[in-house]
Amino acid sequence: MYSDLIEKLVKQLQCFPGIGPKSARRTVFHLLQYNRQGGLAVAELLKAVMNKVDYCQRCKNFTEDALCVICKSNNREDDLLCVVESPSDVVAIEQTFVYKGYYFVLKGALSPLRGQGAEEIGINNIIKYIDRYQPKEIILATSSTVEGETTAHYLSEILKDRNIKMTRIAHGIPFGHELELTDGRTLRQAFSERKHFNAD
Amino acid sequence: MYSDLIEKLVKQLQCFPGIGPKSARRTVFHLLQYNRQGGLAVAELLKAVMNKVDYCQRCKNFTEDALCVICKSNNREDDLLCVVESPSDVVAIEQTFVYKGYYFVLKGALSPLRGQGAEEIGINNIIKYIDRYQPKEIILATSSTVEGETTAHYLSEILKDRNIKMTRIAHGIPFGHELELTDGRTLRQAFSERKHFNAD
Repeated sequence: MYSDLIEKLVKQLQCFPGIGPKSARRTVFHLLQYNRQGGLAVAELLKAVMNKVDYCQRCKNFTEDALCVICKSNNREDDLLCVVESPSDVVAIEQTFVYKGYYFVLKGALSPLRGQGAEEIGINNIIKYIDRYQPKEIILATSSTVEGETTAHYLSEILKDRNIKMTRIAHGIPFGHELELTDGRTLRQAFSERKHFNAD
Repeated sequence: MYSDLIEKLVKQLQCFPGIGPKSARRTVFHLLQYNRQGGLAVAELLKAVMNKVDYCQRCKNFTEDALCVICKSNNREDDLLCVVESPSDVVAIEQTFVYKGYYFVLKGALSPLRGQGAEEIGINNIIKYIDRYQPKEIILATSSTVEGETTAHYLSEILKDRNIKMTRIAHGIPFGHELELTDGRTLRQAFSERKHFNAD
């Protein structure tokens, strides 16, 4: 409207998730007024990331090297493999420090309606991974959605003859939630998967 | 944490207003998974905007040319000058199509506490502008804040000997607001600036 270049950037910035025309313009004006060096640094790093970041040859997480930092590490537990749907799931799990094994990152979950079959989400690659690295336990950490559950069942089915312990992360009432505000499906699952409890 | 390049970008992206570590990471993963071309286009345009966009020689709005699109136009009303605090104010006013004159964009409002004096916000430049282009009416459209009001008063004071009509945009209850929810200061102003009203 007032500057072709600014208008083009405002439009293009809207390919960022959660950015609309107003916040895009606010961002551009803010950088122009207060932080041009910051804006230039973002431009350079964004170009480098888009051009150089690819998939880890082993776990299919994002990395700019052949192997990601986790797969390169010697401090992880060799016997454990955790299967997740996306690189952001790895970040979420790593931030808890609860897990010290390796990962395999699927490209999403099975969703026939969206054309996401076994091949598309990388089932071939996970089988190659398992045959090569032979983990003793596979933790299925796909989402607690219909697609995530389907993917977990599919994997446990096709891997059942391999004599590997298969586990699924627990589902139930999240920490800090009130019982009366918990949805029925979660509550049913929390009851059907109840555990022994000894106060000692 | 997992890729140095991604971590650098996630950190740098936080110089965008309203972007924290979580939304920065979500943005980077989204682009890597679904829209690398979009990410590259943003990088290129962002670099161009940061390097090439400067201030319009006449009105001090942002532009990559010597004069901005509005100052270059011959379809605006020569007699009118609207003074605003920032380029985003020009966008807001232009989107209403209510005003067809020219603009002068200050660099913020007077705020002695923040070191924003007359020189910092460009008062010298607006005086040069007025002496050169001789508008017949100056519309003071600074914000309805203490700083904006101070700036409006300061301008009307230093320009009072020039025989130019000075106006201030109206303040009152915004359209669609309920009276009982309007703050006291706005309500007082709406009463003291009440106007004749004839139902015809």
